[in-house]
Amino acid sequence: MDAALVSELRARYGIEFQNLALLDEAFTHSSYVNEHRELGLRDNERLEFLGDAVMEITVSEYLYKKYPDWPEGKLTRLRAAIVCTKSFSSFAKEAHFDRYIRLGKGEEKNGARARATLLEDLFEAFNGALFLDQGRGAVVKFIEQVVFPKIEAGEFSDQTDYKTNLQEFLQQDGEVEIEYKLLAEVGPSHARQFEVDVMMGDRVLGSGVGRNKKAAEQAAAKVALAKLK
Amino acid sequence: MDAALVSELRARYGIEFQNLALLDEAFTHSSYVNEHRELGLRDNERLEFLGDAVMEITVSEYLYKKYPDWPEGKLTRLRAAIVCTKSFSSFAKEAHFDRYIRLGKGEEKNGARARATLLEDLFEAFNGALFLDQGRGAVVKFIEQVVFPKIEAGEFSDQTDYKTNLQEFLQQDGEVEIEYKLLAEVGPSHARQFEVDVMMGDRVLGSGVGRNKKAAEQAAAKVALAKLK
Repeated sequence: MDAALVSELRARYGIEFQNLALLDEAFTHSSYVNEHRELGLRDNERLEFLGDAVMEITVSEYLYKKYPDWPEGKLTRLRAAIVCTKSFSSFAKEAHFDRYIRLGKGEEKNGARARATLLEDLFEAFNGALFLDQGRGAVVKFIEQVVFPKIEAGEFSDQTDYKTNLQEFLQQDGEVEIEYKLLAEVGPSHARQFEVDVMMGDRVLGSGVGRNKKAAEQAAAKVALAKLK
Repeated sequence: MDAALVSELRARYGIEFQNLALLDEAFTHSSYVNEHRELGLRDNERLEFLGDAVMEITVSEYLYKKYPDWPEGKLTRLRAAIVCTKSFSSFAKEAHFDRYIRLGKGEEKNGARARATLLEDLFEAFNGALFLDQGRGAVVKFIEQVVFPKIEAGEFSDQTDYKTNLQEFLQQDGEVEIEYKLLAEVGPSHARQFEVDVMMGDRVLGSGVGRNKKAAEQAAAKVALAKLK
């Protein structure tokens, strides 16, 4: 067990694990287990399975109660912006979880410590472990510190973020670079329209029009996603 | 409030709602709300949003604890077989929930009362309402009666059911009929191979080979899904 992790959890979040083996398991990547078969360790994938569901109910219950007048569609979109790779990996990083994950040497070289999907899994596994160790109340208390204030600060949108969805969709098979290119601004100033192409290299993935650049980019990403899927 | 529903819940499951308005909400379809705007009712979609997450954690925790030696992949596949339209709609029917849902006249005529997605949503909404009314323990107690015994009886598979997935994928845009056609049995009897096409009308969606008809059908459905997605 990493003593630095134990004291950081205590100091920053007031969390004290009873069963330290669970905490160990949450911070053990399968690549580490594979490189140390003699130790008979467990990787964090089962805890991730559980933690995924723990996070879903924790965020859902919060949103349901926080926004009593919102229709289901709006709740679902906001939940999707919170419960996703991008957000969960940033929560994991902010909590310094990336410093403590035990990785195999090969994966370490491949930069797995900074990989968004690994950090997302780690965040879920940690919450799964916390749930088993101390129950759902302890998870809610932790999430009240690392997630809910960001929701209240408006950091997540209840609009579908097509740009992020497109990026994540394309990155399934490795890193890609896409670019949004402003083609034209047309119309009088009070009814200006922006035209944007989203490009991957020389290839136009989609085109969009909107009242400002951001809206046109979202529209282009939406078209690109529909074409690619 | 439907008195028959209240007494059926009490008699069959020992469930007694404190807040009957929540129970009403769970059994109110949006089509009924739209036809009775003067009543200012709420439909069950917000409860469905919450109940979806409640079911996810309830089933996940059960599987995690029930199968302490299973790897994550196997847990995830079994969860997917339980937490799905087909299963949830059958649980709703078995609990007679379909008798009590309040529908608009148009939807009633369209056969919505027997529609699998409506019954799935209803099952989730009910569990969301039960969670709000009495907490997670009450949901677990209910699910112990209507779902867990079926898991123990082996009614769900931890193999991916491509045939069901294909059916559900194709039905997103309305009813379709697909057919599995045995093309050939080849090889000696101790190493027989079956070849199957999955067809929609005259169109071959995919072809598969397997050691028995069922395996060949699953393989064909898998190919079809990969092509269609």
